[in-house]
Amino acid sequence: MRLATLRDGSRDGRLVVVRRDGEAFADASRVAPTLQDALDGWEEREPALRALAESVDAGGVEVERLDPTRLLSPLPRAYEWVDGSAYLSHVRRVRKARGAEPPPTLETDPLVYQGGSGVLLAPCEDIPLPDAAWGMDFEAEVCVVLGDVPRGAQDAERHVRLLCLANDLTHRNLVPPELAKGFGFFQSKPATAFSPFAVTRDELGDAWRAGRPHLRLSVRWNGVQVGDVDAGEMHFSFDDLVRHIAKTRGFTAGTILGSGTVSNADPARGWSCIAEQRALEMIEHGAPRTRFLEPGDRIEIAARDASGRDVFGTIRQRVVAT
Amino acid sequence: MRLATLRDGSRDGRLVVVRRDGEAFADASRVAPTLQDALDGWEEREPALRALAESVDAGGVEVERLDPTRLLSPLPRAYEWVDGSAYLSHVRRVRKARGAEPPPTLETDPLVYQGGSGVLLAPCEDIPLPDAAWGMDFEAEVCVVLGDVPRGAQDAERHVRLLCLANDLTHRNLVPPELAKGFGFFQSKPATAFSPFAVTRDELGDAWRAGRPHLRLSVRWNGVQVGDVDAGEMHFSFDDLVRHIAKTRGFTAGTILGSGTVSNADPARGWSCIAEQRALEMIEHGAPRTRFLEPGDRIEIAARDASGRDVFGTIRQRVVAT
Repeated sequence: MRLATLRDGSRDGRLVVVRRDGEAFADASRVAPTLQDALDGWEEREPALRALAESVDAGGVEVERLDPTRLLSPLPRAYEWVDGSAYLSHVRRVRKARGAEPPPTLETDPLVYQGGSGVLLAPCEDIPLPDAAWGMDFEAEVCVVLGDVPRGAQDAERHVRLLCLANDLTHRNLVPPELAKGFGFFQSKPATAFSPFAVTRDELGDAWRAGRPHLRLSVRWNGVQVGDVDAGEMHFSFDDLVRHIAKTRGFTAGTILGSGTVSNADPARGWSCIAEQRALEMIEHGAPRTRFLEPGDRIEIAARDASGRDVFGTIRQRVVAT
Repeated sequence: MRLATLRDGSRDGRLVVVRRDGEAFADASRVAPTLQDALDGWEEREPALRALAESVDAGGVEVERLDPTRLLSPLPRAYEWVDGSAYLSHVRRVRKARGAEPPPTLETDPLVYQGGSGVLLAPCEDIPLPDAAWGMDFEAEVCVVLGDVPRGAQDAERHVRLLCLANDLTHRNLVPPELAKGFGFFQSKPATAFSPFAVTRDELGDAWRAGRPHLRLSVRWNGVQVGDVDAGEMHFSFDDLVRHIAKTRGFTAGTILGSGTVSNADPARGWSCIAEQRALEMIEHGAPRTRFLEPGDRIEIAARDASGRDVFGTIRQRVVAT
């Protein structure tokens, strides 16, 4: 089942169910008006939503043509956005690029940070760039949307309701002074964008294994594919991440948990954020050659399954000066 | 006007208006079912809520006796909880206690971190303590609840809807290893508790000046007053904090923004978190003498105005082993 949120002028939009081919949708608001509402009562609502999705696929329900620019982020505002950094080649390269050592516990203790979740960008929404000198970068990630997670939870399996993609934007040049203050990211992380669809795990088939999404992510910058990365290379699984974040508190339904920038040890797979490429260039040439984002740039992020289907729809954004 | 959220079995509780004497409340759900809903449509709903509050004070509406243990946090789950650290004597003492230097920009660039907001403790809810070795500490803070804040906002005046208090709990012994990883607090910050009432600025009278709440906070630990601190001593005002957090993104209505632990340069005012007292003991005696929280401990936090009125109601919590 694939769910999406239609822009309707309200803060939370309107829940819709997406047809299997991704070309049409049906209103789901008679089951749940919003995705947050569906997640709040998932055990009751999931069966009704699945029944509706089956009717949509069977042609038994009135549908509308799906235009991704009419969609909001699946959760236009979320109660929490917690982002991990589970691909260690990313951590190693980016820290090297800013002259910081990876923490000694890199392989045993997951890195996560608390992101801002009250204003999230739509999948095709412009990326506002107030100042190009801040070094705007994209980051392609896989996320899980959680149900209620009690403190002390030990695994993700029972708590993952949906999966989606994120474009976790970062002002790279604001990161070093901010992290030097000791309290983590704040101004360096503007609003994050999410994929058109949030999908149940069964949509991944056997690509969901051991708490990891074994999917290929395609990352395109101005039409050129810069990354064809394997999201299955997570060092920490979503089980590990859930165990980590739930050590001292619980989470409400609708919490979004991100994998961190998808990154592969093999540089031939390319990159899903500019900072990594710049880091590799510094190692090879002594200085970065690839610039950060500028107004007019276009970014596309999508994940295809083994059959070639665009699982989450494509994040397709343009950078605009503001 | 003073608002509160009654526990009714739902995730967001039910909005109530509190009588001037704090002894009774009236259901406000015919105006707005929840506080979040009131904040989402504040311009329309504020006048109706104020009219209801006037009727309550005039005895023209049916009321119920107010029992603070029936209240949830004003926002039982919030879209964001952003916490500053605007009292510099706190930063200086606590960093000294853990052998860390304050950042060189301490007086010019506010420290803020993104807190977890999806599960918030009620004002009289037990504080769960899984492991006393984690060094549980309380922190008394003043918070503002914001309306919609656009990116680039320059002041708090237009955006502050309500004020409340927080008990920002911290596992002190989890802080140094976590901050050493570079991404800020996560496991070291369990769920935060908030005061019974969230109040409009006019309830503070002239105690709200230049974006600062000039109120005395009383902090009691097992019945003993350990702090009688002046919340007006904020180095950074809420205007400064709003300008800081809105540099690169906007915020949705219902975002909670905290002052950080209230702290005064004059040690005779006492303390509103244990870490500060331990820091002073280390300076004086070479070692801390005051222990962190243990099961059975009771914490009370309240703010009184010049007339002695308990403005936000009293946070009254007990620590329980879990």
